[in-house]
Amino acid sequence: MGLIVQKYGGTSVANPERIRHVADRVVKTYEKGYNIVVIVSAMAGITDGLLDLAGQVTSSPDKRELDVLLATGEQTTAALLAMTLRKMNYPACSMLGHQAQVVTDRDFGNARILEIGAPAIEKYLKKRTIVIVAGFQGADVQGNITTLGRGGSDTSAVAIAAALKADVCEIYTDVDGVYTADPNICTNARKIKTISYDEMLNMASLGAKVLQIRSVGFAKKYNIPVHVRSSFNDEEGTMVVSENSGMESLVVSAVTHDKNQARITLNKVPDQPGIAAKIFTPLADKSIIIDMIIQNTHPGGQTDLTFTVPESDYKPALEIAKRIAGEIGAEDAFGYEGIAKVSVIGVGMKNHSGVAATMFTALAAEGINIAMISTSEIRISCVVDEKYTELAVRVLHTAFGLDAD
Amino acid sequence: MGLIVQKYGGTSVANPERIRHVADRVVKTYEKGYNIVVIVSAMAGITDGLLDLAGQVTSSPDKRELDVLLATGEQTTAALLAMTLRKMNYPACSMLGHQAQVVTDRDFGNARILEIGAPAIEKYLKKRTIVIVAGFQGADVQGNITTLGRGGSDTSAVAIAAALKADVCEIYTDVDGVYTADPNICTNARKIKTISYDEMLNMASLGAKVLQIRSVGFAKKYNIPVHVRSSFNDEEGTMVVSENSGMESLVVSAVTHDKNQARITLNKVPDQPGIAAKIFTPLADKSIIIDMIIQNTHPGGQTDLTFTVPESDYKPALEIAKRIAGEIGAEDAFGYEGIAKVSVIGVGMKNHSGVAATMFTALAAEGINIAMISTSEIRISCVVDEKYTELAVRVLHTAFGLDAD
Repeated sequence: MGLIVQKYGGTSVANPERIRHVADRVVKTYEKGYNIVVIVSAMAGITDGLLDLAGQVTSSPDKRELDVLLATGEQTTAALLAMTLRKMNYPACSMLGHQAQVVTDRDFGNARILEIGAPAIEKYLKKRTIVIVAGFQGADVQGNITTLGRGGSDTSAVAIAAALKADVCEIYTDVDGVYTADPNICTNARKIKTISYDEMLNMASLGAKVLQIRSVGFAKKYNIPVHVRSSFNDEEGTMVVSENSGMESLVVSAVTHDKNQARITLNKVPDQPGIAAKIFTPLADKSIIIDMIIQNTHPGGQTDLTFTVPESDYKPALEIAKRIAGEIGAEDAFGYEGIAKVSVIGVGMKNHSGVAATMFTALAAEGINIAMISTSEIRISCVVDEKYTELAVRVLHTAFGLDAD
Repeated sequence: MGLIVQKYGGTSVANPERIRHVADRVVKTYEKGYNIVVIVSAMAGITDGLLDLAGQVTSSPDKRELDVLLATGEQTTAALLAMTLRKMNYPACSMLGHQAQVVTDRDFGNARILEIGAPAIEKYLKKRTIVIVAGFQGADVQGNITTLGRGGSDTSAVAIAAALKADVCEIYTDVDGVYTADPNICTNARKIKTISYDEMLNMASLGAKVLQIRSVGFAKKYNIPVHVRSSFNDEEGTMVVSENSGMESLVVSAVTHDKNQARITLNKVPDQPGIAAKIFTPLADKSIIIDMIIQNTHPGGQTDLTFTVPESDYKPALEIAKRIAGEIGAEDAFGYEGIAKVSVIGVGMKNHSGVAATMFTALAAEGINIAMISTSEIRISCVVDEKYTELAVRVLHTAFGLDAD
């Protein structure tokens, strides 16, 4: 019989009543004859509460100890769900990260899974026990407790599904799937039935709200079908699968937007070899992620260099840029926070020309100016003025035929 | 250099401010050159909160899972204290029960420590790291999380002190030591400087408020000096040591009382072999602990059998007694909750006669009737009417010369 891995997020296990609801759902699958491994997050609000507690002790808690503290959140949920199932007379058993042999590196707070010792879990599955694994946590080879970063329970689930060769990894959350655009700003958005790993990876800004991006990389690597669905109803959600799995043949699958963007420009930069490294190395040292970069060359051998950063990194990035501008002899550095990135994504692009033209034409028709452009094999992104974000999304959604009937 | 084990109870780590206070105390000892292992309890109120949470899920939580849940309490404190010390630039590191290799049996909720793998902790001590161990918890040989029962952190501390051959195990609590009587009812009570393990073991009713009785047995077995003291001041507390350690030569060291007592009588029990087993086996099956037993024989070959039980077991014990009375042909079973047990304790009794006479005379002089008597090598206990409890304690405290100057 098959094996299903189910992961329940914080809102799905927010209180004892919701946990009972999850138990009912687990039992329904179990009664169909499947073996089940359930990965749970901390109850909604608990992780923030623990961070607050640490904050009362020190503003910069030791990372090893913070992981020991945070790991209690998922431990609590795992115990409560196992209790609930046992009360219902089902064989169930909680396992913490180290007990489930989720071996990670030692990057506390953002650890990567190195290996999962499947036999530890399989021992219970053979006895038809429902295994409840505390998500988000693991242990390094020395046995130190580690956590996988925000949303890490998704990665726990997909990695465990991969290690156990599960038929599917179901991610239960508080939305019912991945949409063609954010339904809050595009009333015509549709739920996507099937989407490829690569498209999900390119949908970070939209997709990350329902699925930790790192987990998608894992799912792709091990070819684990991921079913993103709601724990609040029984509807089918969105299947995230490999590209060849008979998907809808749309050119563009989704339109995403990201307002968490800011732009920084260094103007009149001397055009010399090695200048780019001088600008971007100090930013990388501060772990500031650069998204788009544009270079405009002036006739006099000088260039304007513009790049985008997450809005949360805007201030430190601008400070660094101003300092560097002085060091390399640029005229000045200045920035602007009022921008947004709008993207169209679709594996269909690989085989279709004219996607960019359609995009630019649609935006131009509404008088939306494009400040920057970047493209990948299956994505085209434009930076526009933030105030046009919603309009741009709706226009593109219609232009690429995504509107619901 | 020496090694000191310190254990801090729930009120001593009740909030981040108290935890900082504990850190200051730990550092003070560390700076004297000692190696330190700190055992922490859950923050006051946390364990009750977790029990309440489990209660919202099921009225009879699975014991294995309840231990997984409860263990988060001490885990939280250990992480917070380690963070606090690291913030103060001291090398510190938390260890959970399984990490510190506290190996127990699998009696979830009331596990016994089988072994402690000292090298796991010693590895850190060699590097002069302050080790913070989550108390109350361990793991069985399969790695299942276990807990040691209420007050189990005391036992964790003494067991770890024994395994590491510590110079002393300091138990920090919210009282400043063990008293000759409960200061709330006997204003003349004095703090005891030194008391023997055996006396502490006999002081369950008084002593258990400051030190889990099971931990005293451990301390006695491995001859670990235990220093019970307050975390709220710097005064010396009470040393619990072996009998030969140059103690005060008092006949009686303390007067204790226990109002949590009830009496059950089966009257006109046929005097036949095996009757006692018929009465007490069903009570033992329900884990009801019988304290004193008295048998009065009537002229006609019948006896009245009276025994005491903890007040919390009174109702089920009386039900069982009534059922048994019918089965064995006794006239009836009835009970009374309004009793208390008053005891005098002292290793000096071994070498002194007349202690019982002094006790009975002192009580009689105040018109206090003695309903039952039991004795051990170093203790005499009398059951009296509950309303005389405080008077009895004060009278005995004076009679045995324990009053403060």
